[in-house]
Amino acid sequence: MKKSIFQERLSVLRQGLTSNSPDTLWILQPENRRYLSGFKAPDTQLNESSGSLLINSKRAFLITDSRYTIEAQKQAREFEIITFKKDLLTEMCSLLMQLKTKVLGFEGDHLTWEQHRQFAKQLKKLESPVRMVPLDGYIGRMREVKDRGEVKAMKAAADIMSGVLDEVLYGLEPGRTEVDVAREIEELARDAGAEGMAFPPIVASGPNAALPHATPTQRRIGPRDPIIFDVGVRLDGYCSDMTRTIFLEPPGPMFKRIYGIVRQAQLAALEFVRPGEKSTKADSVARDIMRQAGFGDYFGHSLGHGVGLATHETPRLSPKNPVTLEEGMVVTVEPGIYIPGKGGVRLEEMVVIEKQGPRILTENN
Amino acid sequence: MKKSIFQERLSVLRQGLTSNSPDTLWILQPENRRYLSGFKAPDTQLNESSGSLLINSKRAFLITDSRYTIEAQKQAREFEIITFKKDLLTEMCSLLMQLKTKVLGFEGDHLTWEQHRQFAKQLKKLESPVRMVPLDGYIGRMREVKDRGEVKAMKAAADIMSGVLDEVLYGLEPGRTEVDVAREIEELARDAGAEGMAFPPIVASGPNAALPHATPTQRRIGPRDPIIFDVGVRLDGYCSDMTRTIFLEPPGPMFKRIYGIVRQAQLAALEFVRPGEKSTKADSVARDIMRQAGFGDYFGHSLGHGVGLATHETPRLSPKNPVTLEEGMVVTVEPGIYIPGKGGVRLEEMVVIEKQGPRILTENN
Repeated sequence: MKKSIFQERLSVLRQGLTSNSPDTLWILQPENRRYLSGFKAPDTQLNESSGSLLINSKRAFLITDSRYTIEAQKQAREFEIITFKKDLLTEMCSLLMQLKTKVLGFEGDHLTWEQHRQFAKQLKKLESPVRMVPLDGYIGRMREVKDRGEVKAMKAAADIMSGVLDEVLYGLEPGRTEVDVAREIEELARDAGAEGMAFPPIVASGPNAALPHATPTQRRIGPRDPIIFDVGVRLDGYCSDMTRTIFLEPPGPMFKRIYGIVRQAQLAALEFVRPGEKSTKADSVARDIMRQAGFGDYFGHSLGHGVGLATHETPRLSPKNPVTLEEGMVVTVEPGIYIPGKGGVRLEEMVVIEKQGPRILTENN
Repeated sequence: MKKSIFQERLSVLRQGLTSNSPDTLWILQPENRRYLSGFKAPDTQLNESSGSLLINSKRAFLITDSRYTIEAQKQAREFEIITFKKDLLTEMCSLLMQLKTKVLGFEGDHLTWEQHRQFAKQLKKLESPVRMVPLDGYIGRMREVKDRGEVKAMKAAADIMSGVLDEVLYGLEPGRTEVDVAREIEELARDAGAEGMAFPPIVASGPNAALPHATPTQRRIGPRDPIIFDVGVRLDGYCSDMTRTIFLEPPGPMFKRIYGIVRQAQLAALEFVRPGEKSTKADSVARDIMRQAGFGDYFGHSLGHGVGLATHETPRLSPKNPVTLEEGMVVTVEPGIYIPGKGGVRLEEMVVIEKQGPRILTENN
């Protein structure tokens, strides 16, 4: 019988378990939780969890409260669903005793200091004490290489976004506000079947285009403004992410030149987004081109990032922390040049790394 | 000269500083950050901060990266804005040396275990070592009592929401899907000037109304369904939160009875939402009424929670952790009865506690 995708992921996870120190894993981070179990509920707030996974070599539990029991049962088929009565800590203690856990792995980059303190204190007091050790991004690394279904969802998300942006650009006239255009993007994306936006759309015109993380304002778009659209939708949990910079009328010589340099940097960098290359290489290639053109000081962020269930995830394409790129990773390639007070240009494609090189998922049709 | 609201908050904070152990505070939590500084940028993702505050008895810094410098300068007028070049940790080390910090207070309920580990390790190594101690919800408690401007923003947010819901209910017919109605709510809220939703609207009909945290589905609303609307918008950063349960045609005897009991529990509980009362009292009053009516097992959540810059904040009206209610606190009062497979009724008002008792902010006009 064919294994479900979640059975497969659990068995990959468990292979890692044997050689690692923790015998049981505690998973809270919403994207990790969904990746391993299929449970879709987001956390309503930073400090309000909709559920925890507890996994050892034999068993897999999803612990939740009564608000989520029914959804959990439907969605997380490979997990035993536990609805806690008192609180999570009490339920965890009793399950860890049942599992004879000695070392519990936790997500150090998600659990707050306070949660860790409370749990560590109680777990140490158990009849057979449980020690807590951090997982250091272990599940995040499992999520880096996408399978065919994941790439398909991301391609579909990217296609929705390309289509919506085409429609918006077709009707775009000077004088409309950034906020108004951003809102049109959100509405068309929903009409086109997106689950939601992957992040609030960026529509940044004129001097606002010099802010890499601009939020749309009431500024009216001018005919010769650079306009940056950084947009993405979510489909079946997976995100798309793309950036276009456009001008309603031909730009002046400065932005014409900048656009050319950014595009050249992007194309050159894409050549190094291949299996076996270091994640720092594409970044340095793009950065060198912009530096040689005299714009070295105007590119403040890194070249790109992984995309998946989260908009931003590992691997990063940045000057730091080199990792080796692998087939199946999905990353963005997004160089930019930002001139304070004047504007900027950013171009971003989301690509899947295939054997023979990057395949662009955000290409317009 | 009149102090700005942020100068006032800083001086309240600093009064606390003298008698407490940390001499410098590090604030990252987005609502705490906005409350103290006026800096509005949200964090784009859990692990992606848009800025940190560093405050001691004399000076107040906002440390951010180049994406946010301009916004920070405009919004956080009482703060010295520092744009870090390398990374936050390096910048923090140099500032803490400059401030001669010995003990740094951090938000234990927001900082992740991993962030704490990295920072604590580096800060211990400094020439004059810095020790890190948790703040234990200190800023959260400062935020509990609202000033006049905050209550005004929340009343305005509540009014937008009431108006929108009236409009939606006026046109509501059986046969429409929950998702479709939820979307109409979002669109009307934006048209009415809301910054955004405080949380994704809940529209839960028939059996879905038995799920306190239902997400809208493609289910078509039936004429005799209980329909729960749990909705709120954000205005000037502040949230509103209200719940109505309605029926398009008169309900059967069971839901008629349940509605009456929930309403009775709500009215009785409101009597104990007064300065000087314990936060556990209103919860137990409501719970007792529903228990005596035979529905004790069908109310799984707590009676209410504080609202402000966050939808859910302290104080909680729950059976646990009694605190004394104070004038100026804004809380919800939201009893509910949920019958699995059949439906449910929840009624929620958001009230500000005044000298003479609760003033309902979510009253329909």
